[in-house]
Amino acid sequence: MVDRLVVIGGDAAGMATASQARRKNPALEIVALERGHHTSYSACGIPYLVAGDVERSEDLIARTPDEFRSKQRIDVRMRHEVMAVDLAGRSLEVRDLDRERTIRLPFDQLLFGTGAKPIRPDLPGIDADWVKGIATLGDGEALLAQAQASRCRDVVVVGAGYIGLEMAEAFKRWGARVVLVDGNDTVMARTLDGDMGGSLANAIRAMDIEVRLGEHVQGFENGTVLTDKGALRADLAVLGLGVEPNSALAGDAGVPLGVRNAIEVDARQRTGIDGVWAAGDCADTYDLVSRRRVHIALGTVANRTARVAGINIGGGYARFPGVVGTAVTKVCGTEVARTGLTEVAARRAGFEFVVARIDSTTKAGYFPGAEPVTVKMLAEKGAGRVLGCQIVGGAGAAIRIDTAATALHAGMTVHEIIDLDLAYAPPFSPVWDPIQVAARQAARLL
Amino acid sequence: MVDRLVVIGGDAAGMATASQARRKNPALEIVALERGHHTSYSACGIPYLVAGDVERSEDLIARTPDEFRSKQRIDVRMRHEVMAVDLAGRSLEVRDLDRERTIRLPFDQLLFGTGAKPIRPDLPGIDADWVKGIATLGDGEALLAQAQASRCRDVVVVGAGYIGLEMAEAFKRWGARVVLVDGNDTVMARTLDGDMGGSLANAIRAMDIEVRLGEHVQGFENGTVLTDKGALRADLAVLGLGVEPNSALAGDAGVPLGVRNAIEVDARQRTGIDGVWAAGDCADTYDLVSRRRVHIALGTVANRTARVAGINIGGGYARFPGVVGTAVTKVCGTEVARTGLTEVAARRAGFEFVVARIDSTTKAGYFPGAEPVTVKMLAEKGAGRVLGCQIVGGAGAAIRIDTAATALHAGMTVHEIIDLDLAYAPPFSPVWDPIQVAARQAARLL
Repeated sequence: MVDRLVVIGGDAAGMATASQARRKNPALEIVALERGHHTSYSACGIPYLVAGDVERSEDLIARTPDEFRSKQRIDVRMRHEVMAVDLAGRSLEVRDLDRERTIRLPFDQLLFGTGAKPIRPDLPGIDADWVKGIATLGDGEALLAQAQASRCRDVVVVGAGYIGLEMAEAFKRWGARVVLVDGNDTVMARTLDGDMGGSLANAIRAMDIEVRLGEHVQGFENGTVLTDKGALRADLAVLGLGVEPNSALAGDAGVPLGVRNAIEVDARQRTGIDGVWAAGDCADTYDLVSRRRVHIALGTVANRTARVAGINIGGGYARFPGVVGTAVTKVCGTEVARTGLTEVAARRAGFEFVVARIDSTTKAGYFPGAEPVTVKMLAEKGAGRVLGCQIVGGAGAAIRIDTAATALHAGMTVHEIIDLDLAYAPPFSPVWDPIQVAARQAARLL
Repeated sequence: MVDRLVVIGGDAAGMATASQARRKNPALEIVALERGHHTSYSACGIPYLVAGDVERSEDLIARTPDEFRSKQRIDVRMRHEVMAVDLAGRSLEVRDLDRERTIRLPFDQLLFGTGAKPIRPDLPGIDADWVKGIATLGDGEALLAQAQASRCRDVVVVGAGYIGLEMAEAFKRWGARVVLVDGNDTVMARTLDGDMGGSLANAIRAMDIEVRLGEHVQGFENGTVLTDKGALRADLAVLGLGVEPNSALAGDAGVPLGVRNAIEVDARQRTGIDGVWAAGDCADTYDLVSRRRVHIALGTVANRTARVAGINIGGGYARFPGVVGTAVTKVCGTEVARTGLTEVAARRAGFEFVVARIDSTTKAGYFPGAEPVTVKMLAEKGAGRVLGCQIVGGAGAAIRIDTAATALHAGMTVHEIIDLDLAYAPPFSPVWDPIQVAARQAARLL
């Protein structure tokens, strides 16, 4: 008898798992259920679609349902929503949204790839149709249409994290008046330490985006965003308050949930239930630096955990070692990257450490186009193990975070980073890479 | 009694050693002898000076003799050439070139920072004044003056390595007719495997530089470069045949020389003679991948070995673990980088390995400005330890070599590279970094 794998969710995690399982096991029967209209698109590309960098929403689609069907024999069923999971009976209750009928679908293996959803706090008026989160490609298309039609002259973005900043810039570029509101004292407060957010906030203000920090949104009413400091006019309010795991379906069925209600998985992406797996934004993962379970909703983690799940489901053997918390973005011409722990996170995790913070350039200082870059590095007391790194700077600054991320995976000390044989030529870097300049300062402080 | 450190050579290695020793030991007497006119300049910047990217030769000088004297109490003596070293008598015979007198200078500690010199094969006519190597900033200034004055309409560049390619581009940009001649079948044959050099050669030809490979220069005669295939008209011939350690002074004194006649040093940069040290291009170093002594003349290695020498001379303790062979350049709009071993070098070192070669993009494929990038990766049979990586591509391609270089330092396998938590956002990278795409292919081949 042939085993049937059912994948819930047709985006990055679900479809990458299905593809990998197919590669490992040509005999497997694979069904993928997606309640929306698209498979396998780049959610990270949505802000750039709204901004107009990416011309057509189709460009964000890595592979269409038909391609999965014809090239990989994956039975993709669009507009099919799973209503309930019966773990004991090994079957799903599935609603075919277009045909308006409900079917029962048995499974041998089950993969949760249900992703994450934008956080919508319980505030008065938040369900009004001019208050938008960005969960799907459809949401992005709708926002783009609004921006192009100039139907939103006043846009309030709530939350100054990645998505909030990217959306603020996108609407500014379409000519809207944009106000950015965040309850924290700095932008990207969950990503960067406060001392690194300052120059980013300046770059945003320089684009004529009003940045209101330490201000808390309390409700939405008749084209007005109400805060603890006043009322902000808005044709459109965009929520950028982060996401939470979309795990209710799994939790209701009895699959154990962990940190932030993400589905708890082991290093092979197994849940606590035999033959039931999870990958991507709906699952938790392991932070190699803090040695804690965490929830990280990023495309890279989704693809890598899906690869591991797919290999295991297909009968192979793979383990996902964990993450170090790397992330990067570009806002208003300023590049921002981080890996490992911020000061706040490192203190919370009980580390004692020194903090180096240096200014350098992205190329040899004398080379045309050299841009400023600030690097902050945390090193643990004692041996000097690197704990985290943050970068803010001009073009070419952020990608250097990969050196620090790789060093974190290897458990390197700042002394070892100083000795790294990194690439140098005047158009690429100063002779001491900015990451190494930071490591040298950390070594002196130790 | 105060110890006296004498540094021979006032460029990167010599002055970085002197500075570091000063920082460690404020009491040390430090004398630095430089036979030329400049201290501490970026030799790697010379081609960009000739090309006109860098406007003034002063921009390449990191620190002037007066700054070393006033800020670090280093007794820098310009235009002082060491004629002989008396190891038994612990003293130097020094020629003061301007005053035309010879002095004897005793030392307690001695640092060789004598650098490297361009290879000039013993060919007829090679000493003619229209045949130039590029050893010093003065050489660069002279070439720039010639290029600007359009006194060289026909330039033949001999050798298609880093310097040769950079100089070919520089003269092309000033409007010269440029012919590039190399005895190997591919460009950058010592740096890249032949299969990676092809697209680079195309980019060079697209700039209307004539590339003649497999052609051997046999002599220079009356404005003509003679090869085994004919005669090439030239107002100027530029030698880009690589460099060799400038170690005759040390060798003549009895300091042991090693690979390619570089001064043999241990991990603390000690030569075989007590109190005598060497750093930078005149010294050998250790290749962490092949586990062999090697000679690598690069500014990064010079600065890092000098730091180690300076700490040790100043009474501290530091060891230089070695290099992995990282290098990068940009020629005619194409970026090139490598780290670890090429196929040729890996075979010579006795490794058995698989070779992955993949095409990807520098940003998400749909993102504007995404450039093509080709990555080649070698992985050792068995555990799959990465042995080397080569990158050729558009803007943003080359700096990714740092991820592979850091992985080489850590002795990572391709499986571990797949799991690295690298930075991803559409303007920076595809969701799987090209380095990881190569690692995935290598893992499949293993």
